[in-house]
Amino acid sequence: MSEQLILHEYAESGNCYKVRLTAALAGKPIERREYDIMKGETRTPEFLANVNSNGRIPVLQVGNRFIPESNAACYYIADGSHLIPTDPFNHADMLRWMFWEQYSHEPNIATLKFWMRSLGPDKLSDLQRLQMPTKRTAGNAALKLMDDHLKGRDWFVDDSISLADICLFAYTHLAGQAEFDLTRYPNVVAWIERVKATPRYVAMMPE
Amino acid sequence: MSEQLILHEYAESGNCYKVRLTAALAGKPIERREYDIMKGETRTPEFLANVNSNGRIPVLQVGNRFIPESNAACYYIADGSHLIPTDPFNHADMLRWMFWEQYSHEPNIATLKFWMRSLGPDKLSDLQRLQMPTKRTAGNAALKLMDDHLKGRDWFVDDSISLADICLFAYTHLAGQAEFDLTRYPNVVAWIERVKATPRYVAMMPE
Repeated sequence: MSEQLILHEYAESGNCYKVRLTAALAGKPIERREYDIMKGETRTPEFLANVNSNGRIPVLQVGNRFIPESNAACYYIADGSHLIPTDPFNHADMLRWMFWEQYSHEPNIATLKFWMRSLGPDKLSDLQRLQMPTKRTAGNAALKLMDDHLKGRDWFVDDSISLADICLFAYTHLAGQAEFDLTRYPNVVAWIERVKATPRYVAMMPE
Repeated sequence: MSEQLILHEYAESGNCYKVRLTAALAGKPIERREYDIMKGETRTPEFLANVNSNGRIPVLQVGNRFIPESNAACYYIADGSHLIPTDPFNHADMLRWMFWEQYSHEPNIATLKFWMRSLGPDKLSDLQRLQMPTKRTAGNAALKLMDDHLKGRDWFVDDSISLADICLFAYTHLAGQAEFDLTRYPNVVAWIERVKATPRYVAMMPE
């Protein structure tokens, strides 16, 4: 993999941070191109025609080809590294957590964070407001499932860090911004600290 | 991979059908265990303790271990077969469509099908009813994105069938049941016929 990697991103997005964290832990250099999604910069005709017709970030550019979907971009960067288990069961188990993240975690925790922090409570539609309790319940169910799984374990899959941890870490460590009380999930809190202590770890924003 | 494969499933679920279709195309035998989700059979204490604490199907049992999440189960079954590209870019591109399916396709098209056909219009909550137009718009956007991508192509990734096609096929070929008009997406219609003509294809239900 010698082609240049360019990440088309919005730095405040946890989905984009996943890709940066993967690159850091895998020791792969990436160039960053920033778009302000709040100003519609990923919905311009140029972006839709040349980067992602889905109008979303992150998108990983590999030479002149593009990989949308954060977890697929993470996989491409980490391919062949210690972040992807080689045992077939553990590999499928890692993917299981990555699919679960996109289906049962991100649409609740990340969406609430976006609504509450980026859009702001005053700008929500009635439909968004009505969905908040459902997303709150589902987000807490997701955190509880993680907490139960982490009981007696250091990492989500087998006994070492993998993409499952990186992809779940992104929005879990920001859950407080969506007013989830992480102190209810002590195994999750301990795991967050474990991820932060990993060699080559980078924080989402300069602190 | 010589361990016995058991699929814990609900036959009317497209997510379960994905796994059966993958096994058929990969030539792998699987044993089926049926649960009626409409009667809560995946929320019993036994199911939650022994099969999936998330209370969802499908779950693939491999010996005495379990893989929830349909797309991860498909990957385990197809691992090493012609259904998974070996080129790293094509492999990530396949995962990209599988993640996109779970995030942008299934929650719209499959959920509308479930609400309209399985629950039935009279049993919907106000919140479900209010979400229907949004899901209708997003479902049509997903079908259009697929139709645009398939223009001039036979398959989603590179030039042969992969898990991307199988995972997208499951709910796309049922979209009419959720009152999506597939005739608006002629490339999708042609691709559906192409999947059905694949050697060892099995239909979702006995016809």
